[in-house]
Amino acid sequence: MSGNTFGAIFKLTTFGESHGPGLGGVVDGCPAGIPLTAEKIQDELDRRKPGQGIASTSRKESDTVEILSGVFEGRTTGTSIGFIVRNEDHRSRDYSKIMHIYRPGHADLGYDAKYGFRDYRGGGRSSGRETVSRVAGGAVAQALLAGLGIEVTAYTRELGGIAADIQDPWGAQDRPFFAPCDDVVPLWDERVRAVKEEGDTLGGVVEILACGVPAGLGEPVFDKLDARLAYALMGVGAVKAVEIGSGVAASRSRGSLNNDAMVPGAFASNNAGGILGGISSGQDIIVRAHVKPIPSISKEQHTVSDTGQAKTIRIGGRHDISAIPRINPVLKAMVLLTLADQWLLQRRMS
Amino acid sequence: MSGNTFGAIFKLTTFGESHGPGLGGVVDGCPAGIPLTAEKIQDELDRRKPGQGIASTSRKESDTVEILSGVFEGRTTGTSIGFIVRNEDHRSRDYSKIMHIYRPGHADLGYDAKYGFRDYRGGGRSSGRETVSRVAGGAVAQALLAGLGIEVTAYTRELGGIAADIQDPWGAQDRPFFAPCDDVVPLWDERVRAVKEEGDTLGGVVEILACGVPAGLGEPVFDKLDARLAYALMGVGAVKAVEIGSGVAASRSRGSLNNDAMVPGAFASNNAGGILGGISSGQDIIVRAHVKPIPSISKEQHTVSDTGQAKTIRIGGRHDISAIPRINPVLKAMVLLTLADQWLLQRRMS
Amino acid sequence: MSGNTFGAIFKLTTFGESHGPGLGGVVDGCPAGIPLTAEKIQDELDRRKPGQGIASTSRKESDTVEILSGVFEGRTTGTSIGFIVRNEDHRSRDYSKIMHIYRPGHADLGYDAKYGFRDYRGGGRSSGRETVSRVAGGAVAQALLAGLGIEVTAYTRELGGIAADIQDPWGAQDRPFFAPCDDVVPLWDERVRAVKEEGDTLGGVVEILACGVPAGLGEPVFDKLDARLAYALMGVGAVKAVEIGSGVAASRSRGSLNNDAMVPGAFASNNAGGILGGISSGQDIIVRAHVKPIPSISKEQHTVSDTGQAKTIRIGGRHDISAIPRINPVLKAMVLLTLADQWLLQRRMS
Amino acid sequence: MSGNTFGAIFKLTTFGESHGPGLGGVVDGCPAGIPLTAEKIQDELDRRKPGQGIASTSRKESDTVEILSGVFEGRTTGTSIGFIVRNEDHRSRDYSKIMHIYRPGHADLGYDAKYGFRDYRGGGRSSGRETVSRVAGGAVAQALLAGLGIEVTAYTRELGGIAADIQDPWGAQDRPFFAPCDDVVPLWDERVRAVKEEGDTLGGVVEILACGVPAGLGEPVFDKLDARLAYALMGVGAVKAVEIGSGVAASRSRGSLNNDAMVPGAFASNNAGGILGGISSGQDIIVRAHVKPIPSISKEQHTVSDTGQAKTIRIGGRHDISAIPRINPVLKAMVLLTLADQWLLQRRMS
Repeated sequence: MSGNTFGAIFKLTTFGESHGPGLGGVVDGCPAGIPLTAEKIQDELDRRKPGQGIASTSRKESDTVEILSGVFEGRTTGTSIGFIVRNEDHRSRDYSKIMHIYRPGHADLGYDAKYGFRDYRGGGRSSGRETVSRVAGGAVAQALLAGLGIEVTAYTRELGGIAADIQDPWGAQDRPFFAPCDDVVPLWDERVRAVKEEGDTLGGVVEILACGVPAGLGEPVFDKLDARLAYALMGVGAVKAVEIGSGVAASRSRGSLNNDAMVPGAFASNNAGGILGGISSGQDIIVRAHVKPIPSISKEQHTVSDTGQAKTIRIGGRHDISAIPRINPVLKAMVLLTLADQWLLQRRMS
Repeated sequence: MSGNTFGAIFKLTTFGESHGPGLGGVVDGCPAGIPLTAEKIQDELDRRKPGQGIASTSRKESDTVEILSGVFEGRTTGTSIGFIVRNEDHRSRDYSKIMHIYRPGHADLGYDAKYGFRDYRGGGRSSGRETVSRVAGGAVAQALLAGLGIEVTAYTRELGGIAADIQDPWGAQDRPFFAPCDDVVPLWDERVRAVKEEGDTLGGVVEILACGVPAGLGEPVFDKLDARLAYALMGVGAVKAVEIGSGVAASRSRGSLNNDAMVPGAFASNNAGGILGGISSGQDIIVRAHVKPIPSISKEQHTVSDTGQAKTIRIGGRHDISAIPRINPVLKAMVLLTLADQWLLQRRMS
Repeated sequence: MSGNTFGAIFKLTTFGESHGPGLGGVVDGCPAGIPLTAEKIQDELDRRKPGQGIASTSRKESDTVEILSGVFEGRTTGTSIGFIVRNEDHRSRDYSKIMHIYRPGHADLGYDAKYGFRDYRGGGRSSGRETVSRVAGGAVAQALLAGLGIEVTAYTRELGGIAADIQDPWGAQDRPFFAPCDDVVPLWDERVRAVKEEGDTLGGVVEILACGVPAGLGEPVFDKLDARLAYALMGVGAVKAVEIGSGVAASRSRGSLNNDAMVPGAFASNNAGGILGGISSGQDIIVRAHVKPIPSISKEQHTVSDTGQAKTIRIGGRHDISAIPRINPVLKAMVLLTLADQWLLQRRMS
Repeated sequence: MSGNTFGAIFKLTTFGESHGPGLGGVVDGCPAGIPLTAEKIQDELDRRKPGQGIASTSRKESDTVEILSGVFEGRTTGTSIGFIVRNEDHRSRDYSKIMHIYRPGHADLGYDAKYGFRDYRGGGRSSGRETVSRVAGGAVAQALLAGLGIEVTAYTRELGGIAADIQDPWGAQDRPFFAPCDDVVPLWDERVRAVKEEGDTLGGVVEILACGVPAGLGEPVFDKLDARLAYALMGVGAVKAVEIGSGVAASRSRGSLNNDAMVPGAFASNNAGGILGGISSGQDIIVRAHVKPIPSISKEQHTVSDTGQAKTIRIGGRHDISAIPRINPVLKAMVLLTLADQWLLQRRMS
């Protein structure tokens, strides 16, 4: 419940802005003895790096992580793990154009209202660049969960309204757009190019799948596992809706259709998305995040200045066309962090 | 992050099961001097009472609240507010039929996995009856927010796939099904009757609208206002998806269409649902919860016993046909609790 | 960190004032399956009841606890445990004498500064009566710890400057003043009578001993086990100093004398009080709380009114001469709550 | 309640070990607009630097702090402030002598019990070196409190059993040993030299004084201001007792003597140490920490190995003779952090 800390037991606290010296965080509550190296974290960071394809910004960052504490002889010590990632490409540019103008779809107005002023350079703390620390923290969670047989993947289900078949969710991270099949890639590629030419941007849907989650995670009442997941995903910038299992479709279904019947050793379906009454059921956990189009467009928009004057704005520069696919490793990280936390919470109770 | 406490500053901690002696809670962190009476809380409780219409159970409960502390001469003292509601209709029945059988769509299996055993009487803590305490806590939040000019309403947007026009959202609480218009009521009524006859159940969509929320609420990064709202709503049993503003539709839109342009003193649209970058913008806050059909159906279902044997089950008795409309005051309460908490969090920072 | 909740995993949230309808609390985070009955809690409550001896008030309260949730068939269910204790003797009296006068040594001035007004009836929430809920919560912790072989006792080491021999710490709860030996009882009795006659009050020292605590409890850095214990004990009204092991004496000792040498399977001494570097060592845990004299005296005192006028006050009525012995079960409860919480915290890490 | 985070609103999360690449932390919850520079933090760090006098280690560290985020144009932005301090003198030495031996008075045994293994290089996370991050965080709190007229000083009241007169508490930071008068310095100097020659170590008493604290800080019940201070100070390694105001002496006093009488606009005494019923009264806040002698002595000690074998150990090297004076800025930092947190907590309630 503090803006910059996530988790109750397995906690990630982060810091860093788009244009400051660097970003980083502290992972607190990771058990001792988990194999961990900077390379493991780097692998995940490389997946969200800028310049991953035509949908992405051309900002150049190596995003090299350094672990400062909490690891000894290749294993976690049980104490807090500090890490940093330096910003390299934070060259001073001319911000006079946006310094006093609220960019539509951005947090500018809210930050001014909240803090009385704001770091106007690239959005400061509201920049998507803060997700570097989420991905690094998620990689630590992944190291913990791997030893418990829990695996998580994130893939793009829909981009610009074009849906993909979920043929190979685990191979998605090796495909462009983190696509779960090959066929959709050229379609998405074409859509992205067309929209880029128009100076516009696209939204999409990312699905996250977790396997190997034991039954019994999550807490009754407020801290249901689905509540924690919704919090985790909706806290990522650009996410405007979260679904669990059949989600939106469940609201138009009937009990007799939506209930997942059970047979010895299995369920007949998974409309619940692996969570019943807020507690994991042992089935695969399935959640979806609906991602809005990136608000920075090069088309002209009507807006106001911080003194309330009517203005128009056209946002140029090195911006992504869609938060997808760079948001995928971030959403995966949030599910990893949630599951690590819930697994440890459950462990101390049973 | 503890299962039974909600909020960081304005905190609600609850207790109580379906068939125990009573339910209740503690509101901690409510500022001193807020006018509060048991009657104000009772008004809200009366809105979620059983027996509100044909969609609802016939369980008889007066749900009378008693305040035990924290109020002196009609005002809050700033110390913790304890309240209880006695269960009246917890007559001992024969549970031998469900004692060892997992009801499809319920938390039974998860509770057994989590705790090693469970209170099989009416679901125990997993029963929707726990929401009595949420509504009572929400009424305290409402008393605080009323003094700040913040008002919240919840209305049914869709029931059994039939959508309603949002003509009168503030009058919804006086209509059957908390409908936002008159026309839809007979349609919903008919649908509910038909489904009841079939022994089946229905889902729907509830929208919650908050007016008067100042710009600047919410925290960057993990504790975005929308993340807190998603957590609050998804933590209510039966909710399977949460949308903010244009929500799901945003993922199929474009930046140029989804961005809310600004003109001096106003926004041209509200696709953001009043939240940008996780911070309130001063616009109306709009969130939607997708509610699954009640899993207790009188049709026969396939399931298993707690020793893994194949079984069939038919759930009779006094069950609701839909969580709507009784879930509406609960969802409203969760938004009230969230806003009270965020308002106090913001206050201490600025 | 919220005024009315104690603990991170095993949490106690309390409510209630001296002269309201009742007190109570919620225990959240207690594992499932712990044997628990209202009688077990009642036993502990009976130890702090008014009217326990000449040092105590003559307020008549049966302090009967009722468990409202979280226990099923004699065992905890893992969900939140709600309990209440009705105030019986909260007869309306004439408070006009103290309504606008700050009692020296009391929180009156602070409450007015904090909240803008206060419940002047018997101190409201600042009354020692709130400790009823602590003792009830501690009894739940005791039920958990008993199954783990951890036992805690509290005994009076000093009263009115007269020290006792620690001959029988575990039998203390059956002696007047919770004395750890028989000889000191008549001496304390005499001192108390003399001071009572003078209209004055006494302080003393309570020591709490915990056996069976495994090595490894506590966290490095801020949440050292001794830090948590100091917080727990100093949070009880009237406590003005807390010592761990040799405590104050350690500051005048030398490394060669204060270090506890180790031999195979044992320590040669226990100056550390069972805690090294904030982590339990497996030795007995020993902490001491220094309790100030009760501030309500019948001698005349100089003070001010809430409008800053010079006043004199003489506090009559049914007041204790010393917080000892009624504070002893409270301090024991705080140690029990701390150890239960730390034990559960450690469990999830190892 | 997490080992590495301190505070509820104004939060400090730290990381770092004695012999890793570096230490650091994150300050979360600092309001926007507070003037802050690296130099301000550096000033405080310089006060706890090694090599400050003959009582101290000769470890060479420049302890240069770098701010990585949260400050823009010389003012805090309201977002999280990340900072790091590189370890320079973490040269690899031969640890084979202590790798498997438990040093008496140290956390070695507890860490092994807790985590299954430990970073044996200089104590790892249990090293006093972690306090670098506390002092840096305290400097941020100091920047906030300075603007509110709240000032804190820490001075040595006693060293090796020799007490000092409190003549000039605010000038202490410019005297050797942070002495509150000139006369005691040669006496302490002599004592330290003598003990050093014997290969032994000394304890002492540090008093912390806070002026300008408004009435009304602190929470009733568990989070009393004195409870938070006791937690803050007892959480610093080597502290074995904490007193508030008259502290230990209060337990041997009487109500008529220990109560602080009030006259219009003032108190006649300050036995309460500025805190009544857990709430600040507007008087100076006075707390004392009793510090044990440093356990690393060059005399031979009996101990055991991690396999339970009898061993003897003699700890040579660059160790301090007393935690005083280097602990003083650390204790001051803990009080600053506590007051900043409590001030922000109170702000949102009133």
